[in-house]
Amino acid sequence: MSAVLLKHKLLSPCLRLASTASSTFKYEDLEISLNATPQAKPDNDKLVFGHHFSDHMLTVDWVAGRGWTRPYIHPVQDLRLHPGAKVLHYAVELFEGMKAYRCADGKVRIFRPLENMKRMCSSAERSSLPDFDGGELVKCIKKLISIDSEWVPQSNKCSLYIRPTFIGTEPTLGVTTSSQAKLYVLTGPVGPYYPTGFKPVTLLADPQYVRAWPGGCGMYKMGANYAPTIQIQKVAAGQGCQQVLWLFGDDHQLTEVGTMNLFVYWINEQGEEELLTPPLNGLILPGVTRKSLLELAREWKEFKVSEKEINMKQLVKALNENRVKEIFGAGTACVVCPVEKILYKGQELNIPTMVDAKLTNRFFGQLTDIQYGRTPHPWSEVV
Amino acid sequence: MSAVLLKHKLLSPCLRLASTASSTFKYEDLEISLNATPQAKPDNDKLVFGHHFSDHMLTVDWVAGRGWTRPYIHPVQDLRLHPGAKVLHYAVELFEGMKAYRCADGKVRIFRPLENMKRMCSSAERSSLPDFDGGELVKCIKKLISIDSEWVPQSNKCSLYIRPTFIGTEPTLGVTTSSQAKLYVLTGPVGPYYPTGFKPVTLLADPQYVRAWPGGCGMYKMGANYAPTIQIQKVAAGQGCQQVLWLFGDDHQLTEVGTMNLFVYWINEQGEEELLTPPLNGLILPGVTRKSLLELAREWKEFKVSEKEINMKQLVKALNENRVKEIFGAGTACVVCPVEKILYKGQELNIPTMVDAKLTNRFFGQLTDIQYGRTPHPWSEVV
Repeated sequence: MSAVLLKHKLLSPCLRLASTASSTFKYEDLEISLNATPQAKPDNDKLVFGHHFSDHMLTVDWVAGRGWTRPYIHPVQDLRLHPGAKVLHYAVELFEGMKAYRCADGKVRIFRPLENMKRMCSSAERSSLPDFDGGELVKCIKKLISIDSEWVPQSNKCSLYIRPTFIGTEPTLGVTTSSQAKLYVLTGPVGPYYPTGFKPVTLLADPQYVRAWPGGCGMYKMGANYAPTIQIQKVAAGQGCQQVLWLFGDDHQLTEVGTMNLFVYWINEQGEEELLTPPLNGLILPGVTRKSLLELAREWKEFKVSEKEINMKQLVKALNENRVKEIFGAGTACVVCPVEKILYKGQELNIPTMVDAKLTNRFFGQLTDIQYGRTPHPWSEVV
Repeated sequence: MSAVLLKHKLLSPCLRLASTASSTFKYEDLEISLNATPQAKPDNDKLVFGHHFSDHMLTVDWVAGRGWTRPYIHPVQDLRLHPGAKVLHYAVELFEGMKAYRCADGKVRIFRPLENMKRMCSSAERSSLPDFDGGELVKCIKKLISIDSEWVPQSNKCSLYIRPTFIGTEPTLGVTTSSQAKLYVLTGPVGPYYPTGFKPVTLLADPQYVRAWPGGCGMYKMGANYAPTIQIQKVAAGQGCQQVLWLFGDDHQLTEVGTMNLFVYWINEQGEEELLTPPLNGLILPGVTRKSLLELAREWKEFKVSEKEINMKQLVKALNENRVKEIFGAGTACVVCPVEKILYKGQELNIPTMVDAKLTNRFFGQLTDIQYGRTPHPWSEVV
């Protein structure tokens, strides 16, 4: 790291200007300023998701016509934003969620980071924010994690959450493309999602609440998709549910669970054993965990794996005919989240996921084995 | 103003604490700190919307369990936000748009401010942000405008734009209710929407782009409704259109125009002269200009005034039968914005709005007469 510091100190102002005209920032231009007074780290058993931040963050700024600044790793600090910045009025913002894992060999690994970068660039385009080279951002993120490697919990259940964020900062009130933007990355330790084994959830399935629609932006990780869900999550909690099962359309298609993708493992109407998840039809966030579970299951070649729509009528019929084996959400936070009940039209539908939770357990085991380096796999990249 | 300053200097810390526990902030608790070095004001003929800010802003902060701080008028300054603030990740944000007008009698007036406050509180509830007394905010805003009264352009065409903004500031990454929030108000001079008379617009009506959906939050002025429109506005510009005509549903209902409500003045299928605007069915922002035009037209009792749906098939049929008189958008920025063309399914539909623009002109004249104090009216409140 000191070599990097030295290198950048030697760069002339002329070279610094040259680099800013590029269509992407570059890892080789990274500047680093370390925290003189590192913070105390929280206990692993007292971690609350998203409440703890590591010592450093990464920042890159962009201005139309001038391009990107150098990427910069520096102590976490408040942003100074003009109160007219577009992010504060028109939600010109998007983010990603990734994790770094402390592996048994002592190394730190991250999981399929280029998949997150691909999605981040697609969200940026939909938000009229500028493009960049995701591979360069991954290199910068790896450096950020290696600098704060002591913040990656020494635990095979905890991890370091990584939050790339991209906001439009132009300080003017027109609803137009932001001519200024800031990309930054926060990290912070997070605890186990299941400290004492799986905790199956109850879902509220109420068709009056709609997360995404055709022609909207539900397939992008834009901030705009999240604010509207907070009140609905409270409605669900008020009815004793932990999450919302987002339905869509007159036939009440199942789309997502809370902020997770949805999987149904059942015997379908043709009598086939099938793992099903809704297709990427514009309503569904293309989850990295979703993609990974599909790829694992397709490798196994043990049952049919389908990306297709399923509606509540089909699900209720299958439940009545004892054809449903497991239902679970899938996402970076939990890997898989078993569902035990769905509250639908005033009725409690019991889902037998936890009867043996065979597939839920298998996915959780295989994916965490890869993530924590117990199973060597190209998806897992050493930092 | 000096009296207010004096009064607040006399308040004891004990009283200050008492006020913060309230469920609303109060005007009587307002604190003021003036800008020592006022900025130069831009020329009225060089104003670009949303690019100029007056010297002062109003800020009130809220923390769950502790309530609101005192409202505070102070020089415009950058916000300091933790990079994990919920507004930057999940679009926990909403705003309002209002105007103050320099009237012929030299006084400054604002238009139906409590209507904006009602909508702001409803947007806050939908965003899981705290409630407050809109009347108290109006009093604070009037004080803010009176302090910056020199920023209200001396012109019967320009005005002072007012932007109340409300953001969730809790610095944690869970998708949950923000336990901290900041309400602030910016103002700034804006030029005439029509410096040289009406400028009718061409609209892109493409059903593949959808602004709002039943079960979503299109009826609230949340930031989440705006980011997704920016890319579509660029698509429209690329096809030579100034605005997007937002369609909805399989029957291509007309809903809104850009960021404005939509009005159609026509002879309906029953042969009646009718002013029609889409109903507040959850997809439509309840505009203050929309409401005012409906109320004016209903007072006139000269033609039927309806809030009901209209689709493209009905519109095309009416155009073919020469039953359409005028189509216009309505909003705070422009009052009314005449439409001359709609690009739909590759066809250019010519709208005869500007043939005599009778209603468009009448609405524009009557509403601006009220706003600029030429017609005394209870809608117009002296600051």
